[in-house]
Amino acid sequence: MRRWTFSKGHGTQNDFVLLQDRESMLNPGEAEVRFICHRHSGIGADGLLRAVRAAHIPEWEGNPDLWFMDYRNADGSVAEMCGNGIRVFVRFLLEQDLATGPVVQVATRAGLREATVYPDTSIRVAMGPVTLGGEVTVTVGGVKHRARTVSVGNPHAVSFVDDLQALQLFTAPTWSPPEAFPNGVNLEFVRRVGERHVAMRVYERGVGETRSCGTGTVAAAAAAAAAAAEPLPVSYRVDVPGGTVEVELTEGQAFLTGPAVIIANGELILPEEL
Amino acid sequence: MRRWTFSKGHGTQNDFVLLQDRESMLNPGEAEVRFICHRHSGIGADGLLRAVRAAHIPEWEGNPDLWFMDYRNADGSVAEMCGNGIRVFVRFLLEQDLATGPVVQVATRAGLREATVYPDTSIRVAMGPVTLGGEVTVTVGGVKHRARTVSVGNPHAVSFVDDLQALQLFTAPTWSPPEAFPNGVNLEFVRRVGERHVAMRVYERGVGETRSCGTGTVAAAAAAAAAAAEPLPVSYRVDVPGGTVEVELTEGQAFLTGPAVIIANGELILPEEL
Repeated sequence: MRRWTFSKGHGTQNDFVLLQDRESMLNPGEAEVRFICHRHSGIGADGLLRAVRAAHIPEWEGNPDLWFMDYRNADGSVAEMCGNGIRVFVRFLLEQDLATGPVVQVATRAGLREATVYPDTSIRVAMGPVTLGGEVTVTVGGVKHRARTVSVGNPHAVSFVDDLQALQLFTAPTWSPPEAFPNGVNLEFVRRVGERHVAMRVYERGVGETRSCGTGTVAAAAAAAAAAAEPLPVSYRVDVPGGTVEVELTEGQAFLTGPAVIIANGELILPEEL
Repeated sequence: MRRWTFSKGHGTQNDFVLLQDRESMLNPGEAEVRFICHRHSGIGADGLLRAVRAAHIPEWEGNPDLWFMDYRNADGSVAEMCGNGIRVFVRFLLEQDLATGPVVQVATRAGLREATVYPDTSIRVAMGPVTLGGEVTVTVGGVKHRARTVSVGNPHAVSFVDDLQALQLFTAPTWSPPEAFPNGVNLEFVRRVGERHVAMRVYERGVGETRSCGTGTVAAAAAAAAAAAEPLPVSYRVDVPGGTVEVELTEGQAFLTGPAVIIANGELILPEEL
């Protein structure tokens, strides 16, 4: 029987199991990730974040002594980056004395990311450039909405609505024209709450409605700033079902600041048959 | 900051966080239970099982030296008994060296329960008497089904269907006449797989569809045995989305046998503001 030391944490309720695997001795496969992330027969999480020395990642060409964030979705598939996950990853490194703040560099499949840890315990991460696109139509619960397309590395379509609670997001919304997003799209529904303050719900591609989506909050802020014709740099407060984050939009770069907390440390018991 | 030692386990994917609190020093309130059971910002579980010496439970009038299963629902409310939970509770007692098998007596709000631990790691628990009632009509996804009412301490209505996958259980089914269950009812949908072998899905009162429901499997077996006019004692295999259990029906008593596993042990970090 294998017993693995783990932590669990979350950022605005986007939750992760974290493993320290410096020399890549554990290297969990799809079966282990699915077991660990299963919400009823495992610990339960949106994904697994493995901390491994970058030297063990063949495709990493930068500093081999950095911590590499090996991010896996709950279904076992490999993912590039996660705006909420990287904050939780940095919190984990700090709590385990694997890194010192206030600035922590993290190697990811999307490249080098720098995180800044604030005294109030929030963490700020550079999210890369944001590109605004044209409009599409999003249909949810039989109601059509105009949506602005936004790329934050991954594709988004942002609709402005008056009532977030009324949205029927237990079935998948559709978009038109379908060829706008042949590989799917993340859909944000945004209500303007006040000046540079929005609230949103998000339907994530391949997942369904979630409590939070880091790139989704950036897309929502970018679409809201564009709709209000606000000059850059500008900061938006974005409320999601799982909490609140701050998005700063500058020329060529967005920054996401939000909470990250570790709520448990322990030992996982992996079944023989995995 | 409070740090509590915990375990997590499940029985047919009905999952629980377990606390050893022999002298009732922790005694979690509703806020703590909700925090711990939250699936994104806590560990995540269907409920919390606290192991406390029965002497600390004022309403317990039996042997004060037994372990009392203080069962709380994920919403913080107090619950009486749980057919899957008690197996996980017994597994926890054994793994923590708090009890020895193969027979373990557990004090519960529903009275004394005796569990038998088998060498194959399954655990058998007496579930009390089962009472068959009349028929009601259950409507799910616009389709009407005749349902047999069954009491296993709590109320159930069991419908036989040909296709479990087609059931639309993401919205609440309704029943008629409504006055048949003024306090709600657990609804089982059962397909006969073979001789004394059924598969079921369950919509739990106040929860929604779940991966398993211990009393629900007993109700399903009782309704199936009655429909086939099978004399007692009789044993049924019942497949649920989260696994498989065995239900034995005897005169005046039902027994539920199924798996129970602990998958993690660790330390919870409770936030200051709870």
